[in-house]
Amino acid sequence: MHQTNNTLPEDVWNNALEDFKTHLRFKSISTDSAYKQDVADCGAWLHAKFESMGLETQTYPTAGHPIVVGRTKADPNKKTVLIYGHYDVQPVDPLHLWHSDPFEPVIKDGKIWGRGTTDNKGQHLALILGVEKYLNEHEGELPVNVIFLIEGEEEIGSPNLKPFLEKHKEQFACDIIAVSDTGMVARNTPTLGYGLRGIACLEITVNAANADLHSGLYGGMVANPAQVVAKLISSLHDSNGKVAIDGFYDDVVELETWEKDMWTTVPDMDDTSLKTLLGVDELVGEAGYTPVERVWGRPTAEVNGIYGGYQGEGSKTVIPANAGAKLSFRLVPQMQPDIILAQAKAHLEQHCPAGVTLDIELGHSGNSYMCDPHSEFGKAGQEALRKTFNAEPVLIREGGSIPIIADFKEVLGTDSLLLGLALPDCQIHSPNENFHLANFRYGIVLVQNLLDELA
Amino acid sequence: MHQTNNTLPEDVWNNALEDFKTHLRFKSISTDSAYKQDVADCGAWLHAKFESMGLETQTYPTAGHPIVVGRTKADPNKKTVLIYGHYDVQPVDPLHLWHSDPFEPVIKDGKIWGRGTTDNKGQHLALILGVEKYLNEHEGELPVNVIFLIEGEEEIGSPNLKPFLEKHKEQFACDIIAVSDTGMVARNTPTLGYGLRGIACLEITVNAANADLHSGLYGGMVANPAQVVAKLISSLHDSNGKVAIDGFYDDVVELETWEKDMWTTVPDMDDTSLKTLLGVDELVGEAGYTPVERVWGRPTAEVNGIYGGYQGEGSKTVIPANAGAKLSFRLVPQMQPDIILAQAKAHLEQHCPAGVTLDIELGHSGNSYMCDPHSEFGKAGQEALRKTFNAEPVLIREGGSIPIIADFKEVLGTDSLLLGLALPDCQIHSPNENFHLANFRYGIVLVQNLLDELA
Repeated sequence: MHQTNNTLPEDVWNNALEDFKTHLRFKSISTDSAYKQDVADCGAWLHAKFESMGLETQTYPTAGHPIVVGRTKADPNKKTVLIYGHYDVQPVDPLHLWHSDPFEPVIKDGKIWGRGTTDNKGQHLALILGVEKYLNEHEGELPVNVIFLIEGEEEIGSPNLKPFLEKHKEQFACDIIAVSDTGMVARNTPTLGYGLRGIACLEITVNAANADLHSGLYGGMVANPAQVVAKLISSLHDSNGKVAIDGFYDDVVELETWEKDMWTTVPDMDDTSLKTLLGVDELVGEAGYTPVERVWGRPTAEVNGIYGGYQGEGSKTVIPANAGAKLSFRLVPQMQPDIILAQAKAHLEQHCPAGVTLDIELGHSGNSYMCDPHSEFGKAGQEALRKTFNAEPVLIREGGSIPIIADFKEVLGTDSLLLGLALPDCQIHSPNENFHLANFRYGIVLVQNLLDELA
Repeated sequence: MHQTNNTLPEDVWNNALEDFKTHLRFKSISTDSAYKQDVADCGAWLHAKFESMGLETQTYPTAGHPIVVGRTKADPNKKTVLIYGHYDVQPVDPLHLWHSDPFEPVIKDGKIWGRGTTDNKGQHLALILGVEKYLNEHEGELPVNVIFLIEGEEEIGSPNLKPFLEKHKEQFACDIIAVSDTGMVARNTPTLGYGLRGIACLEITVNAANADLHSGLYGGMVANPAQVVAKLISSLHDSNGKVAIDGFYDDVVELETWEKDMWTTVPDMDDTSLKTLLGVDELVGEAGYTPVERVWGRPTAEVNGIYGGYQGEGSKTVIPANAGAKLSFRLVPQMQPDIILAQAKAHLEQHCPAGVTLDIELGHSGNSYMCDPHSEFGKAGQEALRKTFNAEPVLIREGGSIPIIADFKEVLGTDSLLLGLALPDCQIHSPNENFHLANFRYGIVLVQNLLDELA
């Protein structure tokens, strides 16, 4: 029954590609209210897909975007695996940098190109189609109970999923959770993720004079909000690249030796490969850690956006009336987002100079996550990867955040296996996002091996 | 002949207002190439106005926007006064903060509202209309020769005026230059300006990775250009509010005691009045100087614009591929713009951290200016002000920059009298720019008294 390659019958593959393209054409941008109907349409398509597979299907409205659930008939004698994914996507700007329409998928160079190809439509759809294939080949029987839970708000921090889980806790009781929404370190290198960073966001706005001022008539006399924002941002790091907020590192769990050792063996995560990938001459970060350690096992403070004053053609000699910045913090175990946001707020207020008012708006946040990759379920995940790819899996943590993974643990008490299929050149969240079709095939095979191993 | 009030015959006043409104409706934004034709149309209207006054009129095309010249027939037995102004205006954004269309003038509360009302259409038009009135009342004879020189590129640093003057030097030989493009410190306080700050602009762009990156997958590993821009901006000042660029103050001429003393007597330039005007709780600037000294007699470094990453609704967790800022420096005698720009460039390059590339584009610049307000011509200017306003004039320097004033001195060897009519609440360069109609009337009277005094 184990499949050790990613060959699929032609009709299965052609149908899979058609489903994939249909799924990608929905402009399911969750952060922008202009696309609310597109998000809903995408969820409705998934609902129909689950019904066509014979699953018990239900779409749950939320205060934001709907949650779509499809499940096999529950057999109390079988283990239960919950498969999580998200059908919402990031915004597409800057649009002019895309080589093709982000919502009209193009197949080229062995990849499929478009917003959501990797993050996350391609990955969860592969798992759905693998289960469909298993059902078709085994007269509708699976070796485990399967619950698909696909939400539409991951890119905005899943604000409604945790309350939903708390309300419907019993219905989603399960033994293990499988998620393909993370990275594979290199082509043909099966990757099991056992940790994720958390996140905490905030936005600052600095106001001074009651209008933009002529910088000649008033320059030297009044605080410049753009300079204050710059000063506040500069205050966030010390000269060693460490975050300079008091208490920031207090709850950080240091990396274990086996992790550091394993990570030195991970392909394409060496300095030279990373520099080439990112197009930079030098990698920059916290002193005392390698680049991969900084991203997988250390917290950061980042500026995601900064603005103020005149940005158009030519010059305009004003002192801006206001300026601002969007900040986010990536967190590692056992940092608590609420504590970090409170520390950051205190730091910013303390470093804010006279002559301005500082507004701090706290944004979304989510906990970090870590489990033991050497547990019984961890070993089953490793074995499914090993068989699918015919190679030894690497064990990694992820730099990104999927706050719901921590919520699953908290609400359902269940661990998650992160079976990432995203390759480093997939450009998620950026123009020209793409997904290797080989990995789409591997995903369809992987879920079948996983069901067997978990059983 | 001296007029000691600003009453005008009704027909003169009505015609003046109609001319003013027509002049204001031209969208003569010189920095934005989309408005090139509007700038040209505005110049053409001035040309027609001069012709209607019986002046020898000529419009000179330049590499940018045209220069319009109107002159009385030269009498070698009379002194010659050159009256300078500019018909171009600043951009209007942020447009949503205007209470009325910036290019459809509205009269309300004794003021006229619109872009260019004070800076500079209202001020130079008052001088033109005053000369027109004098000509009409004296059968086309003036006590001095008058040359109007009105350019269309002041707001972008007058790049073509100096070469023009050098080429046509003899045609613009004159004894004194009169300019109304500066401030009056308070209503009914006649103000003679004897100094201006210079200016030097540059723009920085910082680039790191080859695309916007997912801040989870790469945060901690690669330089963040928004953070680098913030760091560079922060490095420009020390904790005393002094500019921290090596050599920046080397050529600065310290304020004289009579200046400091006079400036303490200037109405509405005390801390309380300034705070109320600007809507701030605290005035901020270089330690060791009063707010008015900082603006009129000390150099500054300002951020006019800052940008990078995501600025839209919600959050987008990216590390921006690039970020930038527009900087300007205000200079005092004897600072040289070229030297300051070279020092600033060296400072920024020296403070730029590893992992990014820094591009510095030098922008427009202009020299500071200072003359003796107690000279023969200075006294004539003071007397014209005294008679027009029936009050003792104050002697000030200006924080703003009119680089061409230094160029006039350098090329023609002539000093300028700065007879400012802009009031502190005129909001030039900002939304809701306005001009007090009383000052428009005073301007029409002032130029007539000035011609008499200079003769």
